[in-house]
Amino acid sequence: NGKFCKDPRKVSPNDFFYTGLNVPRRTSNRLGVNVTLLTADSIPGLNTMGLSLGRVDLAANGGLNPPHHHPRASEIFYLIKGTLYVGFITANPTHRLFAKILTAGDVFVFPLGLIHFQWNIGSRQAVGFAILNSQNPGVVTTANTLFGAVPAVLSDVLAKAFQLDVATVEYLQQLPWQNP
Amino acid sequence: NGKFCKDPRKVSPNDFFYTGLNVPRRTSNRLGVNVTLLTADSIPGLNTMGLSLGRVDLAANGGLNPPHHHPRASEIFYLIKGTLYVGFITANPTHRLFAKILTAGDVFVFPLGLIHFQWNIGSRQAVGFAILNSQNPGVVTTANTLFGAVPAVLSDVLAKAFQLDVATVEYLQQLPWQNP
Amino acid sequence: NGKFCKDPRKVSPNDFFYTGLNVPRRTSNRLGVNVTLLTADSIPGLNTMGLSLGRVDLAANGGLNPPHHHPRASEIFYLIKGTLYVGFITANPTHRLFAKILTAGDVFVFPLGLIHFQWNIGSRQAVGFAILNSQNPGVVTTANTLFGAVPAVLSDVLAKAFQLDVATVEYLQQLPWQNP
Amino acid sequence: NGKFCKDPRKVSPNDFFYTGLNVPRRTSNRLGVNVTLLTADSIPGLNTMGLSLGRVDLAANGGLNPPHHHPRASEIFYLIKGTLYVGFITANPTHRLFAKILTAGDVFVFPLGLIHFQWNIGSRQAVGFAILNSQNPGVVTTANTLFGAVPAVLSDVLAKAFQLDVATVEYLQQLPWQNP
Amino acid sequence: NGKFCKDPRKVSPNDFFYTGLNVPRRTSNRLGVNVTLLTADSIPGLNTMGLSLGRVDLAANGGLNPPHHHPRASEIFYLIKGTLYVGFITANPTHRLFAKILTAGDVFVFPLGLIHFQWNIGSRQAVGFAILNSQNPGVVTTANTLFGAVPAVLSDVLAKAFQLDVATVEYLQQLPWQNP
Amino acid sequence: NGKFCKDPRKVSPNDFFYTGLNVPRRTSNRLGVNVTLLTADSIPGLNTMGLSLGRVDLAANGGLNPPHHHPRASEIFYLIKGTLYVGFITANPTHRLFAKILTAGDVFVFPLGLIHFQWNIGSRQAVGFAILNSQNPGVVTTANTLFGAVPAVLSDVLAKAFQLDVATVEYLQQLPWQNP
Repeated sequence: NGKFCKDPRKVSPNDFFYTGLNVPRRTSNRLGVNVTLLTADSIPGLNTMGLSLGRVDLAANGGLNPPHHHPRASEIFYLIKGTLYVGFITANPTHRLFAKILTAGDVFVFPLGLIHFQWNIGSRQAVGFAILNSQNPGVVTTANTLFGAVPAVLSDVLAKAFQLDVATVEYLQQLPWQNP
Repeated sequence: NGKFCKDPRKVSPNDFFYTGLNVPRRTSNRLGVNVTLLTADSIPGLNTMGLSLGRVDLAANGGLNPPHHHPRASEIFYLIKGTLYVGFITANPTHRLFAKILTAGDVFVFPLGLIHFQWNIGSRQAVGFAILNSQNPGVVTTANTLFGAVPAVLSDVLAKAFQLDVATVEYLQQLPWQNP
Repeated sequence: NGKFCKDPRKVSPNDFFYTGLNVPRRTSNRLGVNVTLLTADSIPGLNTMGLSLGRVDLAANGGLNPPHHHPRASEIFYLIKGTLYVGFITANPTHRLFAKILTAGDVFVFPLGLIHFQWNIGSRQAVGFAILNSQNPGVVTTANTLFGAVPAVLSDVLAKAFQLDVATVEYLQQLPWQNP
Repeated sequence: NGKFCKDPRKVSPNDFFYTGLNVPRRTSNRLGVNVTLLTADSIPGLNTMGLSLGRVDLAANGGLNPPHHHPRASEIFYLIKGTLYVGFITANPTHRLFAKILTAGDVFVFPLGLIHFQWNIGSRQAVGFAILNSQNPGVVTTANTLFGAVPAVLSDVLAKAFQLDVATVEYLQQLPWQNP
Repeated sequence: NGKFCKDPRKVSPNDFFYTGLNVPRRTSNRLGVNVTLLTADSIPGLNTMGLSLGRVDLAANGGLNPPHHHPRASEIFYLIKGTLYVGFITANPTHRLFAKILTAGDVFVFPLGLIHFQWNIGSRQAVGFAILNSQNPGVVTTANTLFGAVPAVLSDVLAKAFQLDVATVEYLQQLPWQNP
Repeated sequence: NGKFCKDPRKVSPNDFFYTGLNVPRRTSNRLGVNVTLLTADSIPGLNTMGLSLGRVDLAANGGLNPPHHHPRASEIFYLIKGTLYVGFITANPTHRLFAKILTAGDVFVFPLGLIHFQWNIGSRQAVGFAILNSQNPGVVTTANTLFGAVPAVLSDVLAKAFQLDVATVEYLQQLPWQNP
């Protein structure tokens, strides 16, 4: 990922350390979601280690980590609190949805590069952890990427792809698209 | 990808061969696109070689290879005929669109796992080649995957993610979603 | 790791699922530790995904996940409850100890193949998660491997390596060596 | 390959773009061949993407891309114009030739590191594309490498290896060896 | 491993060369062992090549290359002189010892990341070569790493892990721990 | 390489063992060379380990391991007896020869996929070891592959590539081509 390794003599335990991942995050936004992703940017010792870790907070009654994929990582998701409806969808041509309702203590796997989501169907805030096998996995939130691109994607392209009319697409394109 | 290697004594030149990739494909469908992808399924000798090749035909005046990504491959796209508007969008948080108008002889790169598209803005059929560094790259066509999943994704999830109302989502979900 | 992929038509969401990782494990053993490791054996969908996840329970007042390494994985450790003294030691010739006291919400990284440990210095049971970038990472608990090998390593070898007398080594070799 | 990544803020669509690959190349040289190879040197966006693309022009009636191999890539060859005799040879001890006559639209695979060639047996210029899974694949043209090395390989070595007399080897070594 | 490649124009044959690996090494130390490891530090041309080579001299009658592992490499060991008892131990839970007596001309394999040793049971100096598939494999000598760490590992941790009393551990921790 | 792993319960130390690599090999053949290559075929425990080892015996006064490359491995060569002239040649366009005279105890590196050779310029048999980072590296002896292919490569192709007349090529093609 283009980062340099530190001079070994200057490395300290703090280069392998992060604190505060247990603090609940605010989810008072449109999607009701807050993702904290620890990569080699936040923990220098992760550089070249091939791992990252994310905390996902989802607001009660509908907090959503919207459909997205990681271009460079597979994921294990572990739910520690709450009740979620989660799923991933396989590639062309089958588009099979593999979905499951998770409660605290459940684990679900999202394979490399496939689109997946987490949806809070419970009545209290949910918290899970996303475990990724890259120190720089990337996140592509599908709707945000397509309708919030800068500069905008030609509206004809999106209209035809999504079977929407151009006016709807252009309405969507001028909305704010908050990332989780 | 779970395929076995053939007994070396039974391998013949035909295991490394495919014919007819120059034949124009029919593009008389809703999207105006036809993709022929040669993987280790069509050419056994590609197994373990880490490469595949696709032919993309796009109908005149708006044929579209709609936004999609490859979960396990980067791509070089080479246009041999026609005029296209192509692009890819970077991951969160920037969502930068890198787009370009291509004419015959132009080459464009789509990085690993990022969403990209090709749109025929010319008045005749266009033909390009997609070069992928996996013998099993996978294709995830974004709209088809989300709105054509089987079983369907909960409409509330898609409505919230795309800032559409539920009725629109459910209308979209019952449409046919043809893959390129 | 030599496992075969399932026929895609027979795969179900349960192949990507595990339940009960939130249930506290018994730690009433000599070391005061209990490790639950989810690999491709427990979650078939992890096969080829390059990830695994372990739950580590450590008894109050001295529960110990003793010095060990993973021959095929780096690790992120995330502490959700309790207070631990953790560390890893670099390779020859420096043998630097990188150690830290962790409280709930802290994260620490153990680089590929280096020996590390977790020691409960708090007065209640501690729980952490070990995140590993291999579906088959392996665990080599140092003392158990050397003194509990079957058949036994020649006692002269261990005596010389550890600067112990042969009688002490042979006494150790006949002890039970429980794995975490 | 030792190249640095650009500052992401300074990257533009042109870093992923190349134009003019459809322009016929001159083949009026001894071998009757002209290879244009697009690597991370010509397209900066290919850096770390693991792909490159070459155009091969072969003169009518005997243009030859002489026996060569790529030390760091497998290849898919796609012929868009003309008629070629192509082949690769397996490693010791079998030395099996896998050869085929290709016409426009045909595809052939050359496995990683094996020696292969393309020979124009038709009466007009031929054009094909070489697709390689490395951004820096390397080309080792066999005869040129051995007889055109600088400084020269000891003629005794080549004479014994090729079962030629030393005078013939030394004659060959003073010839010009043009690369495709 | 963070090393840069040299400017190709400045590279010379000496960057791929090392001399004197046949010279016997002194083994008059506590363990009776001397390891010379050639990595990309000693041979710049090894950078990115994924290989290293070590010479192991073992004193007559008990010279010991004590239990150790390589965090980033598998090993082939080739004995050219003397008689050794060698072995490796598998990971949890089996801890199987795979051991063998080797005489000159014998070869033994130590799999990635597993603890192994070589012990001279003959009456003259023994010499072997360790072949490793990383240009920076690393060596973790088990006892030295645990008892010679700087700063010291808490003695309680080692006492509990090794089933030794704290006084013995602290005695061991103040001893010198020479690396092979 | 398509080999299956043994059932772990049936694996024994002999699966990691080979004996007799110190026995001189006969070199009374045209080239004066004998190569013994230990891969996963000869040592089952090498499977998935990414390493192999070859012994090279070269007859006095001109024994030659003729120009060849390994399609899937880099090499460290270690000379234990004799005096050799060795070298490798870089890829197009430079074709630089990196050559060196080696005596016992010298080490030389041959980078991935490049053509190299060893030539005995001393008056007694020489012995070296080739260390390769693949359990199935492959050997492509250049002259043998091109002139000894079965079926034969079209003589026109070789004549043009090597700047030889067709009669010379056809004479060479009917010679026996012994592999080292």
